[in-house]
Amino acid sequence: MRVNKSINNGKGNIMDLYNIKPSEFRKMVRSGEFTGQTSGVSAGYAQCNLAILPEKYAYDFLSFAQKNPKACPILEVGEVGKKALPFLGDGIDVATDIPRYRIYENGVLTGEYTDVSKFWRDDFVSFLIGCSFSFESALLEAEVPVRQIEEGKNVPMYDTNIPCASAGVFHGNMVVSMRPMTPDMAIKAAIVTSEMPRVHGAPIWFGDPEKIGISDINSPNYGEAVTIKEGEVPVFWPCGVTPQNVIMATKPEICITHSPGHMLVTDVKNVSLKY
Amino acid sequence: MRVNKSINNGKGNIMDLYNIKPSEFRKMVRSGEFTGQTSGVSAGYAQCNLAILPEKYAYDFLSFAQKNPKACPILEVGEVGKKALPFLGDGIDVATDIPRYRIYENGVLTGEYTDVSKFWRDDFVSFLIGCSFSFESALLEAEVPVRQIEEGKNVPMYDTNIPCASAGVFHGNMVVSMRPMTPDMAIKAAIVTSEMPRVHGAPIWFGDPEKIGISDINSPNYGEAVTIKEGEVPVFWPCGVTPQNVIMATKPEICITHSPGHMLVTDVKNVSLKY
Repeated sequence: MRVNKSINNGKGNIMDLYNIKPSEFRKMVRSGEFTGQTSGVSAGYAQCNLAILPEKYAYDFLSFAQKNPKACPILEVGEVGKKALPFLGDGIDVATDIPRYRIYENGVLTGEYTDVSKFWRDDFVSFLIGCSFSFESALLEAEVPVRQIEEGKNVPMYDTNIPCASAGVFHGNMVVSMRPMTPDMAIKAAIVTSEMPRVHGAPIWFGDPEKIGISDINSPNYGEAVTIKEGEVPVFWPCGVTPQNVIMATKPEICITHSPGHMLVTDVKNVSLKY
Repeated sequence: MRVNKSINNGKGNIMDLYNIKPSEFRKMVRSGEFTGQTSGVSAGYAQCNLAILPEKYAYDFLSFAQKNPKACPILEVGEVGKKALPFLGDGIDVATDIPRYRIYENGVLTGEYTDVSKFWRDDFVSFLIGCSFSFESALLEAEVPVRQIEEGKNVPMYDTNIPCASAGVFHGNMVVSMRPMTPDMAIKAAIVTSEMPRVHGAPIWFGDPEKIGISDINSPNYGEAVTIKEGEVPVFWPCGVTPQNVIMATKPEICITHSPGHMLVTDVKNVSLKY
């Protein structure tokens, strides 16, 4: 299968980062050399969504994640006030090692940054949530095409009408990512990804987007639209942008997230998350 | 395969409860008709370990569970002060529907009860944790023998030297349950249970008990010893008694748990936990 493994570093430079060691990739991120989206980076290693919240929201958010493991599979929770993530990788600094961050104040996006160290607070708790980018190399190995990697784009993501289970102050609907494929490939993709529940697992829907509240498949709410070829159906996976949306609805005074598609690339192999 | 499906109701009456509807079984528990151990009850339905803690410990405990999903796969967290568990079953009362409870004060066992309603507090949070009894019907269907069901006993459980990841005030070693089987059955059992990660999943060890800190396989720390036949090896699974042990080590002023082997039988089918 021909796969375009070219990734834009966020500054117009095209790189092949499919086989880069995660720690090397994070160095590029920390130095500012890479600020782009991470689909196709460090094949086989888990990538993570980020939500940083003040401690007073931490219990409710962890409860929300427990009740919604498909959309919010938590891979690591940082210690209060600490930037380290020892389970996900030696030497990770959660405030510098993600290509692009968003800061929301009272639910309003107030800025995008490539480093959020200067905003750090002693009461911050970091939640790292599995990302569907993690399973894309498994799809490629199973010869399932991944369109946005072929097209060198960010994955398309959509708001839906699928409700999450509420917990404390957190409630809202699921966000999904979409990969178009033929029905036979969709079946294979369901089997392959069902084995990886800690990075969202199996799809939750395929076919008619309106049934899950998506009015225009060509206008994703996040990421970029990709080509849906004749004979292909859209296949939808629970997406780690869900917790961002749910958090925003509660309008905390501050929340720091990754920018959709711009993930933390970890030292943990997807395969190891199965055991 | 010949399986002894006779279960002692805790009062010397032998019953066949292998196919009883969980809600009917809980009625027997609530009325005091059943106070025994629950291995072999309501085949195919998830059973749960219990830990009830004051709210001030809830975040640390939920974090501990997140870091130790094999030993502490959380299936539901109750709302603060509430006895209902809507995910696990309509009408469940966590203070009456478990056959036998233990109350620990400052880390010391102060009593066993079949109803803990009178001890309930508005700041209590209930944690329901998947139990290996849940997967035993899947083992039996795969024609893997489950010795303690054959012998009409509680499963043998052991303290080990396998450390859990610490979280906040909680730290300690894993407790394991043991089922003896021949090597070919052990392989089959590993495959069958690996598909059920929310009720402890695959074994973590087999063979030499001393390597994981068990000095005498015939003297379990909890439950009852079972026969290990010639040619069989002991196979060990992470056990939901782990969180009890870890909680006791922190000596909270009060903690209510189930009595080992005396579980909450839920309306949730094990198979549905896979999706």
